Amino acid sequence: MRKLRHSKRVEITLIDRRNFHLFQPLLYQVATGALSAGEIAAPLRAIFRRNRNVRVLLGEVTGFDLTKRRVVLDRLPNGGEPRVLEYDTLIVAGGSSYSYFGHEEWRRLAPDVKSLESALDVRRRILTAFEAAEVELDPARRAAWLTFVVVGAGPTGVELAGQIGEMARDTLRRDFRAIDTRSARILLVEVADRVLTGFPPRSSARAKVALEQLGVDAVLERRVVEIDTESVTLAGPGGEAQIVPARTVIWAAGVVGSTLAAALAGQSGAALDRVGRLPVGPDLTVAGHPEVIALGDMVAVHDEGGRPVPLPGLAPVAMQQGRYAARLIRDRLDGKRTPSFRYRDKGNLATIGRARAVADVKGLQLSGFIAWLTWLFVHLFYLIGLQNRVLVFIRWTFSFATHGRGARLITGAPKRPR
Amino acid sequence: MRKLRHSKRVEITLIDRRNFHLFQPLLYQVATGALSAGEIAAPLRAIFRRNRNVRVLLGEVTGFDLTKRRVVLDRLPNGGEPRVLEYDTLIVAGGSSYSYFGHEEWRRLAPDVKSLESALDVRRRILTAFEAAEVELDPARRAAWLTFVVVGAGPTGVELAGQIGEMARDTLRRDFRAIDTRSARILLVEVADRVLTGFPPRSSARAKVALEQLGVDAVLERRVVEIDTESVTLAGPGGEAQIVPARTVIWAAGVVGSTLAAALAGQSGAALDRVGRLPVGPDLTVAGHPEVIALGDMVAVHDEGGRPVPLPGLAPVAMQQGRYAARLIRDRLDGKRTPSFRYRDKGNLATIGRARAVADVKGLQLSGFIAWLTWLFVHLFYLIGLQNRVLVFIRWTFSFATHGRGARLITGAPKRPR
Repeated sequence: MRKLRHSKRVEITLIDRRNFHLFQPLLYQVATGALSAGEIAAPLRAIFRRNRNVRVLLGEVTGFDLTKRRVVLDRLPNGGEPRVLEYDTLIVAGGSSYSYFGHEEWRRLAPDVKSLESALDVRRRILTAFEAAEVELDPARRAAWLTFVVVGAGPTGVELAGQIGEMARDTLRRDFRAIDTRSARILLVEVADRVLTGFPPRSSARAKVALEQLGVDAVLERRVVEIDTESVTLAGPGGEAQIVPARTVIWAAGVVGSTLAAALAGQSGAALDRVGRLPVGPDLTVAGHPEVIALGDMVAVHDEGGRPVPLPGLAPVAMQQGRYAARLIRDRLDGKRTPSFRYRDKGNLATIGRARAVADVKGLQLSGFIAWLTWLFVHLFYLIGLQNRVLVFIRWTFSFATHGRGARLITGAPKRPR
Repeated sequence: MRKLRHSKRVEITLIDRRNFHLFQPLLYQVATGALSAGEIAAPLRAIFRRNRNVRVLLGEVTGFDLTKRRVVLDRLPNGGEPRVLEYDTLIVAGGSSYSYFGHEEWRRLAPDVKSLESALDVRRRILTAFEAAEVELDPARRAAWLTFVVVGAGPTGVELAGQIGEMARDTLRRDFRAIDTRSARILLVEVADRVLTGFPPRSSARAKVALEQLGVDAVLERRVVEIDTESVTLAGPGGEAQIVPARTVIWAAGVVGSTLAAALAGQSGAALDRVGRLPVGPDLTVAGHPEVIALGDMVAVHDEGGRPVPLPGLAPVAMQQGRYAARLIRDRLDGKRTPSFRYRDKGNLATIGRARAVADVKGLQLSGFIAWLTWLFVHLFYLIGLQNRVLVFIRWTFSFATHGRGARLITGAPKRPR
């Protein structure tokens, strides 16, 4: 999008449900009080204010008509007919959500960290749990308030568990009078046999050690079979069940493609894969519709031979695909052929806590302070807007110097008491 | 509180409903997208983490027993009996809320800017109104989306109306394609015959001119008699009614003392004044209870002769009273007599928009850029925490340089559609 905005040859309409771009990779820092919500979001209209060929439209896409080349949107706030837009080229980047493995009722018990709202809900729950423990006299109940379960040990789960560990071990240590926050248990539940399965095994092992130093127990080869308001039930490969009393559960597992993938599949006749992703060709277009480009977490890229290309569900992939889509459109206007999309793996980064991270950059596996510094500057670089970069840099500097988290606020009333 | 925390002779329990201190005077900037919520709030436990004689207790005070020297709190999250705390000295600073003049049903139609949550609700409504106007084709309906009514021309109402004017005239000017945001109407409704009645008439006149330059119409000597989802009805002194089609109404009128004032009055036998404030003596203590100090917006200070002392409902008054309470307690421990509380009026400040403000400092009435710079540094100085000061200063610098507002995000689902 940003690659096309200076082109006078195209008219762009950007449709989004939200009026801001959210930098998802740092959302877990909002959930743990390290950053304030506004610091990782940039208003879309502000980004494109000087690009008269870009129109921003706030709305939810409810369907497509690929034959008539139309996008169907929700109704206007004051009612009327659903809005319809025509296109020459359509780019769909609907992202992904968490599946809860068919247990939609777990969503309210174990929120995810996918939207600003759910991140603030998670922040409220984590901080409220420490407050409840501080005034709880019964040791078993207090221990349940001080037990935090993170489900899924991908980058988001690992980073989240590490941050909760750091809060308990460091940030909040001197905040309370009745409890020792360092006694908090943080369980990182993962169905695979290691954390960060997208990284090489050596990085996984290093991440596990770093997590343990922050008091995070990686509970491997276990899946969640039940969640209620007071506990989580885990089952091992043999099926043996274990009940963990815990009042705070956070979900970061089971990524599935956006419902927009299904809407496109219904129109194009393509079949979604088992995690709800739409198959697209080597040029990211939908079969039979070269004018429809789909990208990001919601697609499974296939090569010239029709074989799926394994790509991680990470921001760098989606960003490179976005730039590729812009190039494809420019090349078509120029009558040029565009080579197939190739993901350039510039490396994989995950931070675990203060000055701890793992990095896997072109076969070089870094950890510790250097990996953490790399992580820090890469994330600052990709944040949109100079102002947000400066604000986040200042937050991080203060956090590093004072071991604090300035945004640990309990806001928003719980919609349903847990 | 902060004046007592280094004293080894006192044990302090700070009870608050929220886990953070909120810097109210800048809340309107959160409501208009200039600042992010976390930047004007500081976690209470972080403020007092090094003061082992200070205990922070999250809870809501539901009543007092002045005879037994007890405070009654709400129940714990897991039920049980209401909590009871004993005290030697009690300080109550419950603040104020808006009355809606007996029309509680207006609260959901016209939110106030008193809490972080309501400020974010106001931000959502203002930004959503511009979005709705952008896609509205009917001119009358579009005009209603572009009409903003602020009720009450005290400092909060004036600053809020000025900021909305600046958003429409400046910040959002290039953001939209179908509407000219500069056509927005902002009405500032006030029952008195001038804005900022707490300032000298000359400052009021200057503020009115500055508001007009930002497109804000001060509608004086009018009161609100009806609000619905599509309009506001105003009545003049003669009773003539006028219906204003407007989709966004913000409330900043009718301050009344906290319900804690009534709870204390019920125990001490004192009568509240007509705006729900508790009478206190010249040393801020409650009649018959020298160990009970009450201060801030919820009290009416009386002098030695029993006559009410007129004090504005502003942050400087409450801050000076807080320091006085700390001094009173220290003096009592030392067996010293404390002179009566005297408010030192260091001046009155209100900002209206970019580089526009009015100040009334010891009889000197400033306006324009110098008043605005004064306002800016005074507010940075009183913000709690160096980190928040730096973050707010950076936001303001960027806003000033780019005419932008980085935090103009539409977040939180509307609880009830308006």
